[in-house]
Amino acid sequence: MTSTTAKTRSWWGWGNVDDAVTGSEKEELLNRVRLLLPDADLSTHEPPEVADLTVPAPRIQAPTSLGHLASDDLTDRVAHAHGKAYRDVIRNLKGQVDDVPDLVVRPRTEQDVVDVLQWSTDAGVALVPFGGGSSVTGGVEPRGLADTYPGVVCLDMTDMDQILEIDHTSRAARIQAGAYGPAIEDGLKPHGLTLRHFPQSFEFSTLGGWLATRAGGHFATVYTHIDDLVESMRVITPVGAAESWRLPGSGAGPSQDRMFLGSEGTLGVITEAWMRLQDRPRWRTGASVIFNDYSAAVQATREIAQSGLYPANCRLLDPVEAILNAGTPTSGGVLVLGFESASRPMDNAMSVALEICQDHGGTVPDGVRSTDSEQQTTRTGAAGTWRSSFIRMPYQRDALAQSSMIVETFETSCTWDKVEQLRDAVNAAAMSAFESLGITGVVSCRFTHVYPDGPAPYFGIYAGGTWDKTVEQWDQIKKAVSAVLVEHRATITHHHSVGRDHRPWYDQQRSEPFARSLRASKDALDPAGVLNPGVLIDPRPP
Amino acid sequence: MTSTTAKTRSWWGWGNVDDAVTGSEKEELLNRVRLLLPDADLSTHEPPEVADLTVPAPRIQAPTSLGHLASDDLTDRVAHAHGKAYRDVIRNLKGQVDDVPDLVVRPRTEQDVVDVLQWSTDAGVALVPFGGGSSVTGGVEPRGLADTYPGVVCLDMTDMDQILEIDHTSRAARIQAGAYGPAIEDGLKPHGLTLRHFPQSFEFSTLGGWLATRAGGHFATVYTHIDDLVESMRVITPVGAAESWRLPGSGAGPSQDRMFLGSEGTLGVITEAWMRLQDRPRWRTGASVIFNDYSAAVQATREIAQSGLYPANCRLLDPVEAILNAGTPTSGGVLVLGFESASRPMDNAMSVALEICQDHGGTVPDGVRSTDSEQQTTRTGAAGTWRSSFIRMPYQRDALAQSSMIVETFETSCTWDKVEQLRDAVNAAAMSAFESLGITGVVSCRFTHVYPDGPAPYFGIYAGGTWDKTVEQWDQIKKAVSAVLVEHRATITHHHSVGRDHRPWYDQQRSEPFARSLRASKDALDPAGVLNPGVLIDPRPP
Repeated sequence: MTSTTAKTRSWWGWGNVDDAVTGSEKEELLNRVRLLLPDADLSTHEPPEVADLTVPAPRIQAPTSLGHLASDDLTDRVAHAHGKAYRDVIRNLKGQVDDVPDLVVRPRTEQDVVDVLQWSTDAGVALVPFGGGSSVTGGVEPRGLADTYPGVVCLDMTDMDQILEIDHTSRAARIQAGAYGPAIEDGLKPHGLTLRHFPQSFEFSTLGGWLATRAGGHFATVYTHIDDLVESMRVITPVGAAESWRLPGSGAGPSQDRMFLGSEGTLGVITEAWMRLQDRPRWRTGASVIFNDYSAAVQATREIAQSGLYPANCRLLDPVEAILNAGTPTSGGVLVLGFESASRPMDNAMSVALEICQDHGGTVPDGVRSTDSEQQTTRTGAAGTWRSSFIRMPYQRDALAQSSMIVETFETSCTWDKVEQLRDAVNAAAMSAFESLGITGVVSCRFTHVYPDGPAPYFGIYAGGTWDKTVEQWDQIKKAVSAVLVEHRATITHHHSVGRDHRPWYDQQRSEPFARSLRASKDALDPAGVLNPGVLIDPRPP
Repeated sequence: MTSTTAKTRSWWGWGNVDDAVTGSEKEELLNRVRLLLPDADLSTHEPPEVADLTVPAPRIQAPTSLGHLASDDLTDRVAHAHGKAYRDVIRNLKGQVDDVPDLVVRPRTEQDVVDVLQWSTDAGVALVPFGGGSSVTGGVEPRGLADTYPGVVCLDMTDMDQILEIDHTSRAARIQAGAYGPAIEDGLKPHGLTLRHFPQSFEFSTLGGWLATRAGGHFATVYTHIDDLVESMRVITPVGAAESWRLPGSGAGPSQDRMFLGSEGTLGVITEAWMRLQDRPRWRTGASVIFNDYSAAVQATREIAQSGLYPANCRLLDPVEAILNAGTPTSGGVLVLGFESASRPMDNAMSVALEICQDHGGTVPDGVRSTDSEQQTTRTGAAGTWRSSFIRMPYQRDALAQSSMIVETFETSCTWDKVEQLRDAVNAAAMSAFESLGITGVVSCRFTHVYPDGPAPYFGIYAGGTWDKTVEQWDQIKKAVSAVLVEHRATITHHHSVGRDHRPWYDQQRSEPFARSLRASKDALDPAGVLNPGVLIDPRPP
């Protein structure tokens, strides 16, 4: 993890303290907000000192044999209390850190994981598996667990972070679950290989976290979801190790991997996985297509998604998203299109995609940029601006949160036939929530992924909040929009996971027989009910 | 099902009586075998009359409310006793039909399914869901169930065979589980759409069967497995209906669909599904590449699989397969390559693929054939011959089975790094089994699917059997080869399913925690243990 070790991780906000939005960058950001929301109260609030927080002393100690892995350091414990959602950051800023693990335990070997699970099962201590801690759904927060469990342990997996084996012929690598994104790519690069999985959290999330939460990558089509990049997984459950074989494909019963993918730490602890790799792309081509009409833009995007062209990037920004995050004023949005290949130039595919766009009134004022090299081209135009802002977004979110803004996202997926209707309904619900809260705000939408049968719309909420009520205000907006998602039978999460925050709507989404089946699996694999209680499945009664 | 309604289905063998291999076709087939295996005893055996079989009378009656759906006709019952594996056909020919369902029940509505499940649960009657009955793994055979259950019912789903809804925008259709392949394609064709899922059993298998067994389609890459073509499913379980939402993608917990995919009728009865469709391809290009060296051919195939070119067909026939089923003598095999697209010509992709082949010594004596039309070109060369023989293969299998031959397949998948080693080991194990049985035979291999990390090798066994021992002889070969698969950690089935025949090796393949989880799910969804007992999970004790 060369890129982050020299920096200091923030206990309360995103990423590194050193990379926070400050100075002129912050001033420019706030000026943009002032233009958009002239009435917003943008007074800035600083985080409290950790030492000033009211945090109960640890109620438990690790057994002697595990003592060398355990930390009861206050900052360590507090930094493992919340994920990195807006409501986490805001609560941190306000010093509302109510549920702090008693201990943080960092296993170094698989046997350590087995031993911790054994102890936790025997002692009835709740265990919250923790990767990079970038959850935005309360997935790593031991919310309310102190009432039910005599102890709560955060199992931080980041000391198990090695690439153990590379199979060049099959293009696969065996990687430990605690490895961060940059460490994985740094380790693979000398071999000309890449996992090519780039979620927005890439720098601050781990392989194990991606697997446990079914992370979506940066790329728009085909092999981008972590689900499809897994060849086999090894999971330590309280009743033993579950390892699947390295298989490119199998039809032998329901997929074991698919049961652990998305299990969010409730069924076992993922220790390592064989991951499918790709050659590093050599040819790249990109373009930003401007539309005057959003419906026409949606239709063009749909046709490309259904064309079998498989673009690497096919991100439709609606007019609000285009102006906010790509600085491009349009009446119908911008489609950020890109193709990549390690085997051949992709200009042909780009031409076909652009023809589709032209048929729907799309224009390409900045032209097409193609490169043939390992070197990434300097990106220009809306696509380039949007990309740099993509990486800065979480830092900007924190700066805005400090300035009393409500800045958060919803993400979902739905079929093409109802996407415009859904977007309208989400907009209306958010606007109506703003109104009833007496605040002003805007809603933006981009498609993060496109499938032949529908896109994954990702909504951004930017509203001027009231400092002492921002959590409640956000919760009210969240409730209003989530109800719309359920009403339209759009998933409550496309790639952010369920965690604790999405439970009420997830429970409506899943069928009762499947819920029963999941509870039965949980009881079979985690009979003491100690693994991440409250996520996906209700915790055992006090 | 226009193509099959006018014909008579065979009770003992594959497909339609009218399409059996007879006359000069049979004579030519046997002559080819005589060349290959001059010592084989090819005397022909005819099936018994159904009326002459010793079949116990039905032990149960359907309740009055379900009487109109139930059949106790002898031929009907016998035709639902076995699947269509070699060992099923041989046992039928010999009159060894030991486990016959008491009744065949054909629900017409979902309520009928609910009612049958209720009755079966209340009465403790075993229920075997049945689609086209093309299982080659004993998946629909009520083997030994009469000893444990007071009655055994075959639930034949083929009266629920309608396309209920088409969403053109999202390119998806809601289809009932009992629809056969041709009926689905006939219904979609007027809309310019296709499910594009063509397993070898296409004409005689159903959507529900494909879903329950995780069928593999004909195509080599990307969207071909039924798993990836499902948008949502509706499954009736004994504890209620489980329906997933129509979602292009979701990260909300472990996938419900993936639990029912591959559940082989043990957790519920699939009644319908929203399936992802595709535009009908317009541009096609195909070529047959000849190799002198098999290792070089494997390497070329691997590079194409890893190129991101996504060929529709990428089927490497080894020298034995090439001569037997494509009539092409080679020392290194034939790679049957094809590209298809609804959006653009694929000559460019074909050129890149052929360059890869040339780098490994591949030649294309018959040239490349490209077409631009809805009309399928007349296929020539090895590709064309192989394709027609693909469709006739199961009928030929039956003709050879009648002539005392042992003709059966193994299919698996493994990573690229060990595929040649695995093929050698399978060949050696089969040859050694032939020798210890005192028979002669050959083993062929083709790749049915290729993934970036490995192929799905499909082995054909052709050996001269001894008529009164062919089942035992086959079982011995099966045992020897399956042990090799497990030893190499190659899946016991890539797309044929587990059924009853693959259980011993499946049990070694799956981890114990996953087995526990599956048993727990089964107990939760099918508390009476009536659904397809013995498949995937042990039946309840007598």
